[in-house]
Amino acid sequence: MGRPALGHRSPEFKTVLERVFPALQNVFRTRQPVLLYTASGTGAMEAAMVNVLNPGDLVLSVCCGVFSERWAEVGEAIGCTVERLSVPPGQANLPELLEARLAQDTDKKIKAVTLIHSETSTGVLNPIHSLVHAVRSHGALSLVDAVTSLGASPFYFDQWGVDVAISGSQKGFMIPPGLSFLAMSERAMAVHKSCKAPGYYFNWTKTLKAQAEFTTPYTPATHLILALDEALKVMETEGMEAIWTRHHQNQLMVREGVKALGLELFVPEDIFASQAATSVLPPKGVEVSALRKHLKAEFGIIVADGQKSLKGKIFRIGHLGYIHQRDVLATLAALDKTLNALRA
Amino acid sequence: MGRPALGHRSPEFKTVLERVFPALQNVFRTRQPVLLYTASGTGAMEAAMVNVLNPGDLVLSVCCGVFSERWAEVGEAIGCTVERLSVPPGQANLPELLEARLAQDTDKKIKAVTLIHSETSTGVLNPIHSLVHAVRSHGALSLVDAVTSLGASPFYFDQWGVDVAISGSQKGFMIPPGLSFLAMSERAMAVHKSCKAPGYYFNWTKTLKAQAEFTTPYTPATHLILALDEALKVMETEGMEAIWTRHHQNQLMVREGVKALGLELFVPEDIFASQAATSVLPPKGVEVSALRKHLKAEFGIIVADGQKSLKGKIFRIGHLGYIHQRDVLATLAALDKTLNALRA
Repeated sequence: MGRPALGHRSPEFKTVLERVFPALQNVFRTRQPVLLYTASGTGAMEAAMVNVLNPGDLVLSVCCGVFSERWAEVGEAIGCTVERLSVPPGQANLPELLEARLAQDTDKKIKAVTLIHSETSTGVLNPIHSLVHAVRSHGALSLVDAVTSLGASPFYFDQWGVDVAISGSQKGFMIPPGLSFLAMSERAMAVHKSCKAPGYYFNWTKTLKAQAEFTTPYTPATHLILALDEALKVMETEGMEAIWTRHHQNQLMVREGVKALGLELFVPEDIFASQAATSVLPPKGVEVSALRKHLKAEFGIIVADGQKSLKGKIFRIGHLGYIHQRDVLATLAALDKTLNALRA
Repeated sequence: MGRPALGHRSPEFKTVLERVFPALQNVFRTRQPVLLYTASGTGAMEAAMVNVLNPGDLVLSVCCGVFSERWAEVGEAIGCTVERLSVPPGQANLPELLEARLAQDTDKKIKAVTLIHSETSTGVLNPIHSLVHAVRSHGALSLVDAVTSLGASPFYFDQWGVDVAISGSQKGFMIPPGLSFLAMSERAMAVHKSCKAPGYYFNWTKTLKAQAEFTTPYTPATHLILALDEALKVMETEGMEAIWTRHHQNQLMVREGVKALGLELFVPEDIFASQAATSVLPPKGVEVSALRKHLKAEFGIIVADGQKSLKGKIFRIGHLGYIHQRDVLATLAALDKTLNALRA
């Protein structure tokens, strides 16, 4: 990212995009094009909704925390009617509830269902394959937030029949924030063609047209794309399956380690636990703020507080991206020492 | 930009934003807040329109090239009725034409007028102060593309009564692309409050609310903002007036040098010439493509071709940002040698 400026219409930059676009398809496990936006993941969420939905359309938002709730907020902001199907924090969205709601929609008023794969505000991993299947059986479009699952947990865009999936550069891709990605199915593309106001900056048709010629419609964040190019090479060398396995192993190490320290997991069942972040209840008498402060000051390790209603009630250990066994071991050892210090 | 990741909600990053937000106001010469978006300049254009306009509103787009035309395209994409007031390429938009059109609009149907300050596709600098004044007298909102004028030519957001102005990180701010900026007047903010569908990602209210607490509503391009922080310090040290003077001197040096080489300027009058880029007609018998190829291969100097209808008809010498006398002298000398080589 430190190299001098290069023209985004230059032949040099075109060869970068010729590598980046297919490599993104490999990460999403799709033969469909993957759009690249200069925007954060929230921008890609708006890009997902505004390109297939018209004002007044009914959207079902399957929520389990702050980030899945954002789908609902974006839907309302663009004028859709949004119905939420929520579970309490720390619980996963189960297909049974979704299937029951969709079964009531006999006149197919629900046009899209928003889902999240990994909800890092609570540390939940949803059974996204089954949820997408339920949506597909109904006929609505599935819009999936894969921001913190892509590059951490198995994700098969084509095989699972996902309609739209989004992710961001600062998560599994291990580079700074500023880029986001969006894959869309042929079904979603067909719906887009009849969309009344897909806007300009996030417009799929304009972006696809440019990407077919290995360019971008507007000036992109060139230096972040150079970093992305390198990150995708690293990911290809390790291999997606090996990346998923590494995240799974790190996650289990965190969970077992935390339990061995006598702490309680906020998401007790392994099967519903995010492979990007693990939420932990602080022990009695220990404040989350004091625990975070000590970990940072003494060990340079940053863990997150809970968000909104969970603030002070959980702390979250991230293990997404460029994380290896030694990082997990160091974090657990530092947590052990911190708890001893705070209890003393 | 090469430093390790830092949390966008960290105290460290907050202190960066505490410097960046007021420094941006200084560049725009405004006391109004300047919004920061992770998006290219085109994203900020959509942010300007979608926050004050509703579908069906009448927009007058004052056009003189590719970038001013983009305002019109964005307006159409968000459902507005767009009327263009255009001049041939190479000519500036004069206040007389605009005043005449606005005078016809006795029932005040025109809600916004889009303008461009520096149109780099042709090399024109519009008399933006007078154009904004004409819009203000009518009562519509003025939306100004200042992407390649901010940090090159005098620009006074508050004093001139501009309603919305946008710019991008990769121009006068001298850092890589990926960030854009938007200033809005109190008048524009009042219109925004009655806007029906201002969207989510570019929503002024959400962005303002976050920026008032020196944060951003969504994950921003943190590393580009670190670069911006440094660039703004460089700009403050040189001083805006000194930056404008340097650009003016470089521009005159380019224009006089090009004429001394026997070439014709596409924008003959200095007063209407962009201080970001100078458009030049190739001499008879010399192809623009051959000239560009030779300059790049022999001297590592990149000049731009014309865009769209001007392709092959002009070439453009950029002199925006981190450019000093020696760069201009080197470019003119290389151009001299290139012309001799191609004519031989």
